[in-house]
Amino acid sequence: MQAHCDPTDTVEIWFDFASNYSHISVMRVEDLAHRCGVTVVWRPFLLGPIFKEMGWETSPFVVYESMGRYMWRDMERQCAKYDVPWKKPSVFPRSSTLPTRIALLGSDEPWIGEFCREVMRMNFLHDLEIDDAVAMQSLLNRLGLAGEQLIRQAKQAESKNVLRQQIERARELGIFGAPTFFRGREMFWGNDRLDDAIAFVAQRRAVSE
Amino acid sequence: MQAHCDPTDTVEIWFDFASNYSHISVMRVEDLAHRCGVTVVWRPFLLGPIFKEMGWETSPFVVYESMGRYMWRDMERQCAKYDVPWKKPSVFPRSSTLPTRIALLGSDEPWIGEFCREVMRMNFLHDLEIDDAVAMQSLLNRLGLAGEQLIRQAKQAESKNVLRQQIERARELGIFGAPTFFRGREMFWGNDRLDDAIAFVAQRRAVSE
Repeated sequence: MQAHCDPTDTVEIWFDFASNYSHISVMRVEDLAHRCGVTVVWRPFLLGPIFKEMGWETSPFVVYESMGRYMWRDMERQCAKYDVPWKKPSVFPRSSTLPTRIALLGSDEPWIGEFCREVMRMNFLHDLEIDDAVAMQSLLNRLGLAGEQLIRQAKQAESKNVLRQQIERARELGIFGAPTFFRGREMFWGNDRLDDAIAFVAQRRAVSE
Repeated sequence: MQAHCDPTDTVEIWFDFASNYSHISVMRVEDLAHRCGVTVVWRPFLLGPIFKEMGWETSPFVVYESMGRYMWRDMERQCAKYDVPWKKPSVFPRSSTLPTRIALLGSDEPWIGEFCREVMRMNFLHDLEIDDAVAMQSLLNRLGLAGEQLIRQAKQAESKNVLRQQIERARELGIFGAPTFFRGREMFWGNDRLDDAIAFVAQRRAVSE
């Protein structure tokens, strides 16, 4: 049975291609949302500048060793729990600027979901660099898109500006980690809150009907 | 139907009476564990010295403002989800040394679970100080225990030593937050992992039967 669908039934996913828990949510969110009649709004951004303001030069999982050690074991268990294929990457966190700019160009396009999942698979399953024009162009071409043109566009000053504004918006929203979900002003942090976020959207809809 | 019970079917809960997410787990853990035939091992400790080593002079929810703002909203939702009564305390994080020393004296006693829940209710429901000899003695008496004697014992050098060793043990185990659950060397961080931790113990038992 198809759930009732309404353009206001949306959940925003704010994520960074470098973030390991974002990997799990990026792989899960669209299936889960569609099953509940909820539309995903993709909000790629970079955590780096936000972490820097918190006093961290890199991921807290690198800054705090015991936290990092735990996180990799937790990733193993969580990916098994949600049936999300993954392999611990040899580099963490990976630079993610170029795919983020590309995702910002395509955030309203029909290919955005598949693009995001493919970039995540490159990083967290195939252990490949993602901040790489050759690899990104090849991925875009495989998705049937004009790779060369999109890469050129992503490298322009305008794309740089859009990304800067996106990070500024994340900061204004009070985002301090990823993934973070929003329905209106209601904020949910972490893959652990993905189900709650979707349920919140569905519940709001039920009340307003 | 009573689940099969075995003395090895245990889950350790490492918690701090000052920690808000520990409140939710302390209120939930015994019911949940007993329903699965699992015994709770209570491991009270202090997060303060561990946070200090991570460079934080207080809770990260105070150090990082946006994280703290989010946490209180999340507490509201999580306590509603798990049906745990609470009220945002006017002081956070509260000093928790004395109740922790008392809990260490009683960690193998039949009153430990109820004592821990009562201290949590004082802090996170009734908004009362807990690092207070008069309040603790009154609580212990209400539980039918020798309050005055326990307080005297908790203030002795031996109790101070036991607490210091407990914190050292937490550090050795790689604990960086609370609540943290253990079954053997398997570690689960946060109230979000309580169900997984109990399921892990129950599953191990099923395999070994």
